[in-house]
Amino acid sequence: MKKLLNDPSEMVDEMVDGIVAAYPDHTRRLDDTNVIVRNDAPVSGKVGVVSGGGSGHEPTHAGFVGEGMLDGAAAGEVFTSPTADELSEMIQACDGGAGVLCVVKNYEGDVMNFDTAAEMAELSGVDTVEQVVVNDDVAVEDSTYTSGRRGVQGTIFVHKCAGALAERGADIEEVVRVAEKVIDNVGSMGMALTSCVTPEKGEPTFDIDDDEIEIGIGIHGEPGVERTELVEADAIAERLTNEVLDDVQPSGEVAVMVNGMGGTPQSELFVVNRTVQELLVDNGLAPWNTWVGNYMTSLDMAGCSVTILDLDEELMELLDSPTTAPAFKTK
Amino acid sequence: MKKLLNDPSEMVDEMVDGIVAAYPDHTRRLDDTNVIVRNDAPVSGKVGVVSGGGSGHEPTHAGFVGEGMLDGAAAGEVFTSPTADELSEMIQACDGGAGVLCVVKNYEGDVMNFDTAAEMAELSGVDTVEQVVVNDDVAVEDSTYTSGRRGVQGTIFVHKCAGALAERGADIEEVVRVAEKVIDNVGSMGMALTSCVTPEKGEPTFDIDDDEIEIGIGIHGEPGVERTELVEADAIAERLTNEVLDDVQPSGEVAVMVNGMGGTPQSELFVVNRTVQELLVDNGLAPWNTWVGNYMTSLDMAGCSVTILDLDEELMELLDSPTTAPAFKTK
Repeated sequence: MKKLLNDPSEMVDEMVDGIVAAYPDHTRRLDDTNVIVRNDAPVSGKVGVVSGGGSGHEPTHAGFVGEGMLDGAAAGEVFTSPTADELSEMIQACDGGAGVLCVVKNYEGDVMNFDTAAEMAELSGVDTVEQVVVNDDVAVEDSTYTSGRRGVQGTIFVHKCAGALAERGADIEEVVRVAEKVIDNVGSMGMALTSCVTPEKGEPTFDIDDDEIEIGIGIHGEPGVERTELVEADAIAERLTNEVLDDVQPSGEVAVMVNGMGGTPQSELFVVNRTVQELLVDNGLAPWNTWVGNYMTSLDMAGCSVTILDLDEELMELLDSPTTAPAFKTK
Repeated sequence: MKKLLNDPSEMVDEMVDGIVAAYPDHTRRLDDTNVIVRNDAPVSGKVGVVSGGGSGHEPTHAGFVGEGMLDGAAAGEVFTSPTADELSEMIQACDGGAGVLCVVKNYEGDVMNFDTAAEMAELSGVDTVEQVVVNDDVAVEDSTYTSGRRGVQGTIFVHKCAGALAERGADIEEVVRVAEKVIDNVGSMGMALTSCVTPEKGEPTFDIDDDEIEIGIGIHGEPGVERTELVEADAIAERLTNEVLDDVQPSGEVAVMVNGMGGTPQSELFVVNRTVQELLVDNGLAPWNTWVGNYMTSLDMAGCSVTILDLDEELMELLDSPTTAPAFKTK
């Protein structure tokens, strides 16, 4: 294993320090936790929007903490849910009196710990804690860590739209409504060329031959829908895009994310994006804005994912609202 | 070789299509070239700021095309300078009558072709073409493709400051002055854990053992200053930071970039950043803003670089001016 690490067991702790050290104007670390919150949290009278999950998916979620997006992000150990204690502390720290929305990716550990944390936070005096569960991965029903569909890159659009509406002073019912609207209209699917290598184990999470790829992979290396021979980028782009379109059934303007899994260079993502965009236009769709890069990764896995969000005027406006979150750039 | 590619010889062409397809509001492709320019180029009365170089370093340079940053970026074949013909076309397309500044990384092919292109553009009616050569890599004097020091990640700060000043309507002498100020005050140094694999060759550019790293590597895999055993991230961060500080000798507020070489996940870059920031503070410096991510890469190379820019009020203001360039986010 060749990684830029010190003691692998200290990776998450040191990473969280490194994140707040990079963005001290916008973020701070809650003492004795791996939780990062906005510097000005809680914002009085504003709905708090928080998220969290296992580490190894950076910039998810900490890179989306900032004005107009997330108030807080909790980092668990690598590919492991944050504890309910830490999630509860985050919810309390982001409660400005108008309630807190937890944006949860659909993994059993995350859902369970956020459930417990919500109860704990309410017992500690937070009036309203709401939860939305993102399940945008169209590849498979049920998976290694998941009942139902997995939550993946579409979560970032939930962060952005819910965070933008909360920043404008909307109440918690409205923020939940918009989060659910994004969840109802977004789909994603990924693939891998190589396995990731987790720091503590130091070995590939799964075996894959030099001439094989895995279609429909999860962001923790969970099995996809097909193990096939290495094919050209166009065939991969077509497969992912068509499966997402079949599910989302968009009709007009769409937001697009062509995401790298951590080990794939942007040059290759742009080659994939070329074909994704052609297919969208061929399907009568209008790509309104596109993000190409590493947004929700799987450590050093080589591979990509395609996310498509069916838009309306409200979602376009929210996606394009300003945010200081370092990992999200608007038009 | 496992990559998201179609025909490797078509990679740059397809990538350029994929870039303009991602950012159609801001960019367009010059016909029959691998040049990307601002959609509104040339901007009448504004100094044009352009750059270019071999492909394989994405998002450099095309990701920095946008209002307030670059007017144009030329993509050569992988690790190969763009042709003088294409560079000349770019200069002409970005000439709004106030002159054009070419920001060139110090590689012999780039410098030579930009020189020739400037002459060609002047013969074609561009009044003033100026050139600055960035040589921020403190690792080595003279290298495989370079006389003097190599130009690397500090180039992005040149793009930003020169582009911001040009956007405000400054004349070409002023834009050159600011570009030279950044060049005089910035230093970078990189390292690699693995070699990159070029698409057409399909094999590692250099051999490196499983327990070795290369300190001072170039962005094309050019030799660095030392081949050593794999050490901890802190030792790597200290080595790179201290060598850059020795060269730049900053005294107050600094801009920092902890850059990934393409195959290294952000989690590891943040571990490195933690130590970089501690060292800066220990040296009495004030990190004013920090960028952590993939900014100037070497295909799929695993590794990182550290860039430090000594700031004054003017440079801070220019770095923080708005830009629509997709790969650069201000505070």
